[in-house]
Amino acid sequence: MDSNLLDELLRSCLREDIGRGDLTSESIFSPEQTGRADIVAREEFVVAGAQTVAARVFTVQNKMIIISDALPDGTRVKAGDTLLTVSGPVIDLLKAERVALNLLQRMSGIATFTARFVEKVSTYPVRICDTRKTTPGLRMLEKYAVAAGGGSNHRFNLADGILIKDNHIAACGSISEAVERIRSTVPHTLKIEVETETIEEVQECLRCGVDIIMLDNMSFEMTRKAVEIIDKRALSESSGGITLANVEAVAQTGVDIISIGALTHSAPACDIGMDWL
Amino acid sequence: MDSNLLDELLRSCLREDIGRGDLTSESIFSPEQTGRADIVAREEFVVAGAQTVAARVFTVQNKMIIISDALPDGTRVKAGDTLLTVSGPVIDLLKAERVALNLLQRMSGIATFTARFVEKVSTYPVRICDTRKTTPGLRMLEKYAVAAGGGSNHRFNLADGILIKDNHIAACGSISEAVERIRSTVPHTLKIEVETETIEEVQECLRCGVDIIMLDNMSFEMTRKAVEIIDKRALSESSGGITLANVEAVAQTGVDIISIGALTHSAPACDIGMDWL
Amino acid sequence: MDSNLLDELLRSCLREDIGRGDLTSESIFSPEQTGRADIVAREEFVVAGAQTVAARVFTVQNKMIIISDALPDGTRVKAGDTLLTVSGPVIDLLKAERVALNLLQRMSGIATFTARFVEKVSTYPVRICDTRKTTPGLRMLEKYAVAAGGGSNHRFNLADGILIKDNHIAACGSISEAVERIRSTVPHTLKIEVETETIEEVQECLRCGVDIIMLDNMSFEMTRKAVEIIDKRALSESSGGITLANVEAVAQTGVDIISIGALTHSAPACDIGMDWL
Amino acid sequence: MDSNLLDELLRSCLREDIGRGDLTSESIFSPEQTGRADIVAREEFVVAGAQTVAARVFTVQNKMIIISDALPDGTRVKAGDTLLTVSGPVIDLLKAERVALNLLQRMSGIATFTARFVEKVSTYPVRICDTRKTTPGLRMLEKYAVAAGGGSNHRFNLADGILIKDNHIAACGSISEAVERIRSTVPHTLKIEVETETIEEVQECLRCGVDIIMLDNMSFEMTRKAVEIIDKRALSESSGGITLANVEAVAQTGVDIISIGALTHSAPACDIGMDWL
Amino acid sequence: MDSNLLDELLRSCLREDIGRGDLTSESIFSPEQTGRADIVAREEFVVAGAQTVAARVFTVQNKMIIISDALPDGTRVKAGDTLLTVSGPVIDLLKAERVALNLLQRMSGIATFTARFVEKVSTYPVRICDTRKTTPGLRMLEKYAVAAGGGSNHRFNLADGILIKDNHIAACGSISEAVERIRSTVPHTLKIEVETETIEEVQECLRCGVDIIMLDNMSFEMTRKAVEIIDKRALSESSGGITLANVEAVAQTGVDIISIGALTHSAPACDIGMDWL
Amino acid sequence: MDSNLLDELLRSCLREDIGRGDLTSESIFSPEQTGRADIVAREEFVVAGAQTVAARVFTVQNKMIIISDALPDGTRVKAGDTLLTVSGPVIDLLKAERVALNLLQRMSGIATFTARFVEKVSTYPVRICDTRKTTPGLRMLEKYAVAAGGGSNHRFNLADGILIKDNHIAACGSISEAVERIRSTVPHTLKIEVETETIEEVQECLRCGVDIIMLDNMSFEMTRKAVEIIDKRALSESSGGITLANVEAVAQTGVDIISIGALTHSAPACDIGMDWL
Repeated sequence: MDSNLLDELLRSCLREDIGRGDLTSESIFSPEQTGRADIVAREEFVVAGAQTVAARVFTVQNKMIIISDALPDGTRVKAGDTLLTVSGPVIDLLKAERVALNLLQRMSGIATFTARFVEKVSTYPVRICDTRKTTPGLRMLEKYAVAAGGGSNHRFNLADGILIKDNHIAACGSISEAVERIRSTVPHTLKIEVETETIEEVQECLRCGVDIIMLDNMSFEMTRKAVEIIDKRALSESSGGITLANVEAVAQTGVDIISIGALTHSAPACDIGMDWL
Repeated sequence: MDSNLLDELLRSCLREDIGRGDLTSESIFSPEQTGRADIVAREEFVVAGAQTVAARVFTVQNKMIIISDALPDGTRVKAGDTLLTVSGPVIDLLKAERVALNLLQRMSGIATFTARFVEKVSTYPVRICDTRKTTPGLRMLEKYAVAAGGGSNHRFNLADGILIKDNHIAACGSISEAVERIRSTVPHTLKIEVETETIEEVQECLRCGVDIIMLDNMSFEMTRKAVEIIDKRALSESSGGITLANVEAVAQTGVDIISIGALTHSAPACDIGMDWL
Repeated sequence: MDSNLLDELLRSCLREDIGRGDLTSESIFSPEQTGRADIVAREEFVVAGAQTVAARVFTVQNKMIIISDALPDGTRVKAGDTLLTVSGPVIDLLKAERVALNLLQRMSGIATFTARFVEKVSTYPVRICDTRKTTPGLRMLEKYAVAAGGGSNHRFNLADGILIKDNHIAACGSISEAVERIRSTVPHTLKIEVETETIEEVQECLRCGVDIIMLDNMSFEMTRKAVEIIDKRALSESSGGITLANVEAVAQTGVDIISIGALTHSAPACDIGMDWL
Repeated sequence: MDSNLLDELLRSCLREDIGRGDLTSESIFSPEQTGRADIVAREEFVVAGAQTVAARVFTVQNKMIIISDALPDGTRVKAGDTLLTVSGPVIDLLKAERVALNLLQRMSGIATFTARFVEKVSTYPVRICDTRKTTPGLRMLEKYAVAAGGGSNHRFNLADGILIKDNHIAACGSISEAVERIRSTVPHTLKIEVETETIEEVQECLRCGVDIIMLDNMSFEMTRKAVEIIDKRALSESSGGITLANVEAVAQTGVDIISIGALTHSAPACDIGMDWL
Repeated sequence: MDSNLLDELLRSCLREDIGRGDLTSESIFSPEQTGRADIVAREEFVVAGAQTVAARVFTVQNKMIIISDALPDGTRVKAGDTLLTVSGPVIDLLKAERVALNLLQRMSGIATFTARFVEKVSTYPVRICDTRKTTPGLRMLEKYAVAAGGGSNHRFNLADGILIKDNHIAACGSISEAVERIRSTVPHTLKIEVETETIEEVQECLRCGVDIIMLDNMSFEMTRKAVEIIDKRALSESSGGITLANVEAVAQTGVDIISIGALTHSAPACDIGMDWL
Repeated sequence: MDSNLLDELLRSCLREDIGRGDLTSESIFSPEQTGRADIVAREEFVVAGAQTVAARVFTVQNKMIIISDALPDGTRVKAGDTLLTVSGPVIDLLKAERVALNLLQRMSGIATFTARFVEKVSTYPVRICDTRKTTPGLRMLEKYAVAAGGGSNHRFNLADGILIKDNHIAACGSISEAVERIRSTVPHTLKIEVETETIEEVQECLRCGVDIIMLDNMSFEMTRKAVEIIDKRALSESSGGITLANVEAVAQTGVDIISIGALTHSAPACDIGMDWL
């Protein structure tokens, strides 16, 4: 995550929440008054974005704000633990508070939710992976949070990964034709992934040397069979309808990757507050 | 919601998801090939953002895309209902698809979750209201979705509403002093709201003519008492720890407004897909 | 006034005046040559924006520039008084000079003009208030200058205040209908203001609990009558055709607020120069 | 004035005034309701920016708005004359109204004020010219308005004109040295102007072939003498303390150009309103 | 190449060249005067960006400009051939002319230079590939031009491709360690490439399953040996010091990819002009 | 060259090359690991942009990076010379490396190519001058590099120089008419240049007091004659088809300025690398 890009994003988040100023606080505090506050967990969770994002929200708002004791990404905290301590001008602490908390709650929520999936399959050689079902505008942070929770990332956007879907195949007439057309035009640095729904499609993918075969909404049975057929000649990725309840069963099929939209679109926010010292 | 501001936001969402292009689709389709697809509900929910946001994602991507049969905000749909139909260049439909769905799922999720709260209290003269606990970057859309679900909006940001909290009061010495200082500086067009935790604070608020009294994390008992004391001389707003399970009990206390962070930070996304015709 | 927002605005002002560089100064001075200059009043006026804006223009241009002895907003100065002293690289002092002076002259002009209105009514319990008739792009600074001159601010933009005008009323059929429609949709944190031209309209406003009643272009006589009828049940705001010559007469009617477009659109600029030391 | 640049500027002006939407109008009107209004002079003045700027504010807000009968720049109007007629969605007419009027009042004010200076010297072969004392952010529009009023423009910014001032000269040791250094570095397409305060400086300028000699705050007497000495070998520009009262006397000295900061920083706004039809 | 992204880029190119307006043309032509011109090859070359970029420069400047007979990318033209014809307002044709030509000359230059390399190796199963040595700001267009000339693209930026270089390896202690660390963190959709300088490094790469092996500045002899050892178990990429004179010899070594920085940083511009009709 | 404008440009160049992060380096190095590297000439050339641009690329990426021993613009270096030394966080050195090198190679290339032209005519009183044939987006840097190589700059864009070309003349009927129309509208601070192709046109230019006469694609013979006729009453500028082979012959004609598009569109990039210490 590039720090310049991050700062730009945070600046625009602050602009949204602050508008032309915090009318209440600017009327009451002088720019010189300083304060100190802890950002504190109100429940148990896996931290994402304390040191890397929330801290930076405060320093982007005012570079005089001092951060201390920020917990690294991936730390497990329980209710009452302090994630980071901030001190500096009260007005700016108050201005940055809500954005910092909103991002931290969401990122830690995603990390925590991801970690639960990861634990369920911890004894299998499989990666839990995100999708493009992220919150518009926050993809960089959300994918970062998935990694903080022990998951891994799928392509970032339409320009840095190839995924041939049914309408691409239909337009070309066959998987082979689609793969050939793609292979001749896209950078050789990108793997080619194809979405399949049948064993025949899996076999056609293997014939034309596809790098990643997505097994889309297949039954456990069919997934297992596909994995067997693929036999490590390509990466296998299971996708569609995966929940905490069935993720272990999916892992048992032997797939390499399990991608789950819910990691980012349905992770519950963590409860985090700011306590003044 | 201003359309120019909305377009700017959508353009930046599209830029995030598309990057410098959809390598897969641009390799396979020509810019001239056209298609047609329905955006379809996969479960029951209250629509927000079909006509107003998702449709616009497509036309911002390419103004040649035609939208038809878009459902108005607030419509209740069931699995299988079409929310809108889009037709135009396939490449642009594919480029806009994910952003449109991501926004629609989130906005409809918020509207649906809000509607559940609203129903619970439909026989009481009370407003269900959002907070600033929104997704950074999407506040305009999320507050819009709350309204589509029958809720109402609290202040948009720190510059268009006054909320005097405990550290503001502490800094001034008393509620009266804080209110006086604020009243002399902020626009007379904004109401003044004060966060209270005790009956004494409520009484002090009434003495200095506060417009809105937030009853923060008070018991039902204390809330009821506060409402009685306020006796319509100010708006009363209940806040903190409100869930679907207890919202009706809160409404029974007689408060005017119930504000709920969960409306925006914890609404589950709706299941919505795009079916090609 | 948020400092990040301010810096962004000042950066764009500097870009306009500097273009790709100060060809004259960059040809003559080296980046290392330093200088020192006073910004000096050439006439008597009320300062706005010395410490808060002009100083910041210089530090935004080059953070090595040192500011000293900047006068606080609202200070009354006479010809020859120094408003602030700047020292640092000559090239950057020269680049920032014109923007700093242009803003300072305008802001101090507005503060001074506002102060003249405020003095005229200093014995009445009334606020002198601005409007949306500000210079496009500089509203934040101009409203700030009104406050520095002792005035107060009306709504900032169309999104943070409600003002129901004649064509809104016409579209709804009546004031009551318009107020009801508005009340059910806008945030409860905003007061509702209605523009009235007759006593009947004032009475209807009172019946439906309007928060602020604008008495638009009414005679002194009618204004006085309206104020009597309103009897503190709403704020009364006089507007239209107010000058230094008649503002005291308006205040005598007993209105709470007098709003004056001329504060921002017609305040004469103050004469301020930069003297090298 | 480039139309793309103009549109960008107007979009940012609209964003300032509209914020996230016109809460009042969006609550009352549907996006389909249309209306029609005249923008009307309430006093006599010279028009600037009706056809070119105000009209564009409306079409930038919504390209469905139709403009008719817009008066060309430089037209003299009297109270009651219509400057342009707009028709389209009421919500967007109301959103664009204030920005359009604010710009039109200011631009026409500048054109009118400029025209008064121009008339005073209409029998002399002299140009009335602006300076860099413009409103930050609006320089392009304000210099355009000066031209619409019959004046002409000085350099636009520090990068497209050379003006050697006293501290440049001091740093180089002499005018000749400064001119030589500048001449060897700046584009040959730009004229070189030097600020002078004595006859000796004027003579030195002539010796080193300066293109424009600014006669800064000189008495009429000294100005006349300088003009005589210059004898058309360079353009002569009078600057400093010029008012409507003394401008003709300045013109009588025979200078080629009279530059006046007040044209842009002190022109009174014109009175212009919008009448619904 | 996404059209919204392209338009944004072109708008900023136009802003650079036009500034606040074309003073010459705006003084002479009225906005209504129209004209028509051909963009014509003055020498033989391979076209890139006529239909896709130059045409768009004109329509971004003014959407009323009509484009006709634009040649597709990859077309070979000879002196005198028309690449596209433009017609519309003269002012806007003149404003867009230089940017359109500058881009077209550069893009066609790159396509033509690439095509010369491609021809040299046309009988070998090898791809001619670009690098990150592109003109800052124009990477999207320059990589597009490489493809138009028959070449292919390497990674677009540091975020969409993995290239492990010597200092990465040094920091990890070994290639294997570096690859393992990378593999566990980056998206599975990206291939892993390692820069090698010796046969031992190539062998280590093969042992840890690297996808692409860059043979950096190796002799023909060593390259041939490396290709033999790799034996299609990874893609082999030759890089460093490749010219038109030696590219065929490189191809003869059997490598899969030849990457050449000169394609973008040293392609001579084509000679193209605009002829008015 | 204004430093704020430069930083903005460099930030956008970095964003292009880095995207959301350097996946390889961020996986391998911690943000705390530091390094040190020399930027080194691999061949002989004239430096442009080491101290002024490349150094700034690094500090814009991370202000903790320390620059030392940066060579001033215009220095002649030979293979092996160090242009500047950078030290700081390895991740940021790697992120900034490519952009710094790409700019430095191009700028030094232009300076070197310019210097070759300048040397060829060093005994003649003539300036070697650039044109608008620059790389879109990089004009400020490229014109700066021309100056670093001993050349001088023509107008920067369409708004800061007047160049009357054939279609302007045709539209007006004659050169005199065009010049008159221009003179009455453009700032008096800009010289007026006219493009001529015949001796008659040159004579007409002189009659109407044109400041610069461009002798476009004239033979040496005709150029010499034109220069004689002009006889220092205007600047003479030779343009069109000028190469290293014929530039001295052009200088011999006595023209004041020789403008050459190739300086910026066809200068070969210099070979520069970064060596880790």
